[in-house]
Amino acid sequence: MTKVGIAGATGYAGAELIRLLAGHPEVELTVLTSRQYAGTRIHEIYPSFTGVVELDCEAYDPDAMCDRADIVFTALPHTIPMEIVPALAARGKRVIDLSADFRFSDPAVYETVYTRHTAKDLAASGVYGLCEVFSEEIRSAGIVGNPGCYPTSVLLPLVPLLREKLIDPSTIIADSKSGVSGAGRSPSVVSLFSEVAESFKAYKVASHRHEPEMEAVLSRIANDPVDITFVPHLVPMSRGMETTVYADLTGDFSDADIHSCLSSYYDGRRFVRVSGSGRPPDTRSVRGTNYCDIAFVVDRSRRRLILLSVIDNLVKGAAGQAVQNMNIMLQIPEDTGLGQMPYPL
Amino acid sequence: MTKVGIAGATGYAGAELIRLLAGHPEVELTVLTSRQYAGTRIHEIYPSFTGVVELDCEAYDPDAMCDRADIVFTALPHTIPMEIVPALAARGKRVIDLSADFRFSDPAVYETVYTRHTAKDLAASGVYGLCEVFSEEIRSAGIVGNPGCYPTSVLLPLVPLLREKLIDPSTIIADSKSGVSGAGRSPSVVSLFSEVAESFKAYKVASHRHEPEMEAVLSRIANDPVDITFVPHLVPMSRGMETTVYADLTGDFSDADIHSCLSSYYDGRRFVRVSGSGRPPDTRSVRGTNYCDIAFVVDRSRRRLILLSVIDNLVKGAAGQAVQNMNIMLQIPEDTGLGQMPYPL
Amino acid sequence: MTKVGIAGATGYAGAELIRLLAGHPEVELTVLTSRQYAGTRIHEIYPSFTGVVELDCEAYDPDAMCDRADIVFTALPHTIPMEIVPALAARGKRVIDLSADFRFSDPAVYETVYTRHTAKDLAASGVYGLCEVFSEEIRSAGIVGNPGCYPTSVLLPLVPLLREKLIDPSTIIADSKSGVSGAGRSPSVVSLFSEVAESFKAYKVASHRHEPEMEAVLSRIANDPVDITFVPHLVPMSRGMETTVYADLTGDFSDADIHSCLSSYYDGRRFVRVSGSGRPPDTRSVRGTNYCDIAFVVDRSRRRLILLSVIDNLVKGAAGQAVQNMNIMLQIPEDTGLGQMPYPL
Amino acid sequence: MTKVGIAGATGYAGAELIRLLAGHPEVELTVLTSRQYAGTRIHEIYPSFTGVVELDCEAYDPDAMCDRADIVFTALPHTIPMEIVPALAARGKRVIDLSADFRFSDPAVYETVYTRHTAKDLAASGVYGLCEVFSEEIRSAGIVGNPGCYPTSVLLPLVPLLREKLIDPSTIIADSKSGVSGAGRSPSVVSLFSEVAESFKAYKVASHRHEPEMEAVLSRIANDPVDITFVPHLVPMSRGMETTVYADLTGDFSDADIHSCLSSYYDGRRFVRVSGSGRPPDTRSVRGTNYCDIAFVVDRSRRRLILLSVIDNLVKGAAGQAVQNMNIMLQIPEDTGLGQMPYPL
Repeated sequence: MTKVGIAGATGYAGAELIRLLAGHPEVELTVLTSRQYAGTRIHEIYPSFTGVVELDCEAYDPDAMCDRADIVFTALPHTIPMEIVPALAARGKRVIDLSADFRFSDPAVYETVYTRHTAKDLAASGVYGLCEVFSEEIRSAGIVGNPGCYPTSVLLPLVPLLREKLIDPSTIIADSKSGVSGAGRSPSVVSLFSEVAESFKAYKVASHRHEPEMEAVLSRIANDPVDITFVPHLVPMSRGMETTVYADLTGDFSDADIHSCLSSYYDGRRFVRVSGSGRPPDTRSVRGTNYCDIAFVVDRSRRRLILLSVIDNLVKGAAGQAVQNMNIMLQIPEDTGLGQMPYPL
Repeated sequence: MTKVGIAGATGYAGAELIRLLAGHPEVELTVLTSRQYAGTRIHEIYPSFTGVVELDCEAYDPDAMCDRADIVFTALPHTIPMEIVPALAARGKRVIDLSADFRFSDPAVYETVYTRHTAKDLAASGVYGLCEVFSEEIRSAGIVGNPGCYPTSVLLPLVPLLREKLIDPSTIIADSKSGVSGAGRSPSVVSLFSEVAESFKAYKVASHRHEPEMEAVLSRIANDPVDITFVPHLVPMSRGMETTVYADLTGDFSDADIHSCLSSYYDGRRFVRVSGSGRPPDTRSVRGTNYCDIAFVVDRSRRRLILLSVIDNLVKGAAGQAVQNMNIMLQIPEDTGLGQMPYPL
Repeated sequence: MTKVGIAGATGYAGAELIRLLAGHPEVELTVLTSRQYAGTRIHEIYPSFTGVVELDCEAYDPDAMCDRADIVFTALPHTIPMEIVPALAARGKRVIDLSADFRFSDPAVYETVYTRHTAKDLAASGVYGLCEVFSEEIRSAGIVGNPGCYPTSVLLPLVPLLREKLIDPSTIIADSKSGVSGAGRSPSVVSLFSEVAESFKAYKVASHRHEPEMEAVLSRIANDPVDITFVPHLVPMSRGMETTVYADLTGDFSDADIHSCLSSYYDGRRFVRVSGSGRPPDTRSVRGTNYCDIAFVVDRSRRRLILLSVIDNLVKGAAGQAVQNMNIMLQIPEDTGLGQMPYPL
Repeated sequence: MTKVGIAGATGYAGAELIRLLAGHPEVELTVLTSRQYAGTRIHEIYPSFTGVVELDCEAYDPDAMCDRADIVFTALPHTIPMEIVPALAARGKRVIDLSADFRFSDPAVYETVYTRHTAKDLAASGVYGLCEVFSEEIRSAGIVGNPGCYPTSVLLPLVPLLREKLIDPSTIIADSKSGVSGAGRSPSVVSLFSEVAESFKAYKVASHRHEPEMEAVLSRIANDPVDITFVPHLVPMSRGMETTVYADLTGDFSDADIHSCLSSYYDGRRFVRVSGSGRPPDTRSVRGTNYCDIAFVVDRSRRRLILLSVIDNLVKGAAGQAVQNMNIMLQIPEDTGLGQMPYPL
């Protein structure tokens, strides 16, 4: 039984990690850390865990973590992981980091977007944990930079088509919509119920920090710099993310061509469901699951492809993909512990 | 492997039955019937089941059902089960009915509330499926009348206290609040999003059909006619039900007395979680689960007990309790197939 | 043209005051104060006011306020008004305070519930601003303590019946449900969208600070100490409050008796709409308005009266009633500036 | 006092017309028709109107309508207006039709999108009621085809830029998001609360009937056929619509150029608020109002313009714009009766 710990267990992504890891048949969840809630039983914070997860939060201590965990999930604000992960790596622990700190193989890009990186060598060795695209590298990774939620929803529909050169990389526009849990559990006016309900708006238009993360991956796939337009929006719902991608087709491809490109790429990968029907996917249908549902429509009059993807931002967009990464690293089936029946509503 | 079928599989309770039974380790889900959707693959109606449940809906046919199912769940509108269950019973099938048709051992009460009963003898043999209260009878039942959602949330906190005579039965008031899924999936103006959002209201004040169902059980527990005041309300949320019960204490009982009464009654029953702290339970903490969380507060100035209970109306209030009933009937652990990790949010 | 100022203009109640006072035909809104947003144009905080209200927030300064306002609304956290109102009163300004500081004619009760009162004499001279009940006193008041939202929704249905002794004061239970804006605009985890959506729960059961406020008024009406049970709940909606009151009837009164008691009391008072039909009122139907809609049902089997009331917690429960109080003080029609057409949805 | 009637008064757009016309200082609302609710007092359907609008619904009768109304609003499903409007026009009544029947000056386009048109000559004489763009024609119109909600939100930001040739018409993509009230009040599964809550999805991707309506107007502005990509999405909220438009700039225009183009075009038009700051507009800030708030961002790396617009789909997207059209036709200030103070939340 592999022992696992979570550093930063009380935010929303951390809590989802608890849910998934406490129910995982091949690992034992042993450590939950929280600066704010050290000493508190986890069900005092999340009452749903009452009688189900009997662990107390504790202050982060590297020795305690290393003694009791083989794999560490870090679900902490950006900049904290780069402070604590080096010591974990030095002691041979494998780390799955849910922040941006280890997502960029080129720390210079990270520094443009975020701040000075204090663990550049380690960052350069990090593997980008987009499971269906980089499984091979993930398998042997010491440190996985778990993808952002927006990048996951944008990249999964785009990668196969870009790789097969069916779309023109200079024309990509991604219009994303996210539920509010993406903003985390820290109190802030903009995430208050009364600010969000009956409200829909764009934010960080063409300036979101996830855009360079997407572009780094797309450029790698295209073997050429790719520069996209990305506009995120906030939806009055708790969980869920939808992305509508627009890109010009490079040729007169049929629906069957596009479907075949997508479904052959994701053949055998349980968590990506490609729809042939063109029925637009709905965030509700993946709520609480690790699925990414993809559909597409060709706007023939303009030879423009419209890709539609949905994920649960906290699962495939965070904790679920992190567990999937762990499974790949442990060389067990990638859906282990992630196969809960989805809810019809 | 016990084979099970669902008659009326495409309403919300039916869909939740699919989720629970398709993921149940001891049964095989073999038949889904639907008048409206006969011939349709279930994931066309509930896309979340894509790639997970590969069954088509079919028109109800008693022979087909009996050939392929040992236990039948009927999730149909009131009056239809009493038409079709007799034939199933005659062929030795055990039935768990989610309508009101088999909840009343005295068909005369049913007839007062609903309509003429056409299977009175069978109704008289039905067992009321409130799992934690009537396990013994359920074990050997041929037909279980699965409780209504409101009765489940009202009865579970009340039964132990009434049984021990800690509260005065003439003073019981139950103020319940339900999410909208309780109204089902039939199109109706009152359940439209724009009618429900930013809206809270009472309905069927002191005249809801579930009130006699509660009173029948409470009277049986109290060995005396019990007449309560029940007011349901509609909450702008999809799933979840909260009930606040008010009743005068019959003596000067301490918090410990009340806690002990509740927790000893539910000792060993996983799905009822009694809170000693008085922290009010939240519907979000039981969403998607079979839990009923109970807390209480004593208003000492008036010697009045306030009981608070929450359930998911579609799970403990419908499909989850139905599966729990099945487990009891099959004499397997009552939480088999119902142990999914709860969501933190 | 009476000049009015708002101290604490950027919270939800303050912002509603801006909406109502900026549109009021008989007053001129001249001063908005805000500690946090001093120097900021109000539409930077509430973009809906863009091009409509051209005022900047400023730090609170008693001289500036007194120079530019004849009537001052204080929409500040409890304890701050009792610090600043004495200076305003000393300079002859009339004050409508939306906090609890001037709601209790007996400061000792205030001190039991809140904290030490530093302006007891002034508090004793304050008038409780429940408009339809205490108009006479309000007319000449120097300081009005604007009622809490819960008390408004509980008292309006109860006062006429208690006054006419149709109900037994020892049996009153008020089960209230409030939208989230009642918790204000201060960032806090419990008011985050992801904590509130799909969630319903009780809180401060039988221990809410508004309970003594209600009891003080009910005791005055009944000429006898009245002690009620009050349980508030939180609803996943932004605005709106519903209260369901239970009380035993003192006699065998007909529906017509009760209707007559309520409607004769509120005869000529535009903002209380008594429904004879028993159709339960809906918070949506009073959203954004100063109405309080009241209906009732008699549970004959127990001779128990069920009263149902709805208000918008920010309007009749706060800013709207405050403006209504101002109108009464100015001896202009009480609905001046409050007559916006209600929204159908 | 101009007398006005509403044919189809009980749908959401009709109800909003009631709100606006009953509060309008220059008109008298005299007739409400409804097939379903003939004989019912309007407040039985919309309780918010209790004591405020004292009109009964009646069956549609052309004589009664013509006798009692000078201007008729038709808020009826497509195809019904073209049946009844000819008789109204023949009797000299001016008509503002909220359906699509009179939006297309070329009935052949209508027939491609909808169905056979039975009043082609009249349709050809109809004026497209996009107030800020076609005021001149509206002033003298006999029949106004009130724009669809999506076209309003797409056209208002685009028209000035397309007219000044700042954007390339072949690159326009409009990604719109609408609240659920846009689907109307007819019962349907897809609009049920439990289907919509916690759900976000695209629908009618690149095939919505409003797309040809937009293209007809854009082509007229550009003096050349314009073909756009339009994808609507459904948001779990009741009211509100946001559109994000993407288009390539035709030159190296500064932010000031774009702002100037937009604000000079809308100079003096109260209901279009152009933001210079780039702060994305929020549907909540225009909820219940006739405003269209517009902002923009230039994605310099790709020389791509991103336009953001928000409206209330039932007001500026339907009833509000209809009343604005009436005001223009009556040659009174276009904001008469539309100047309610906006809500801060």
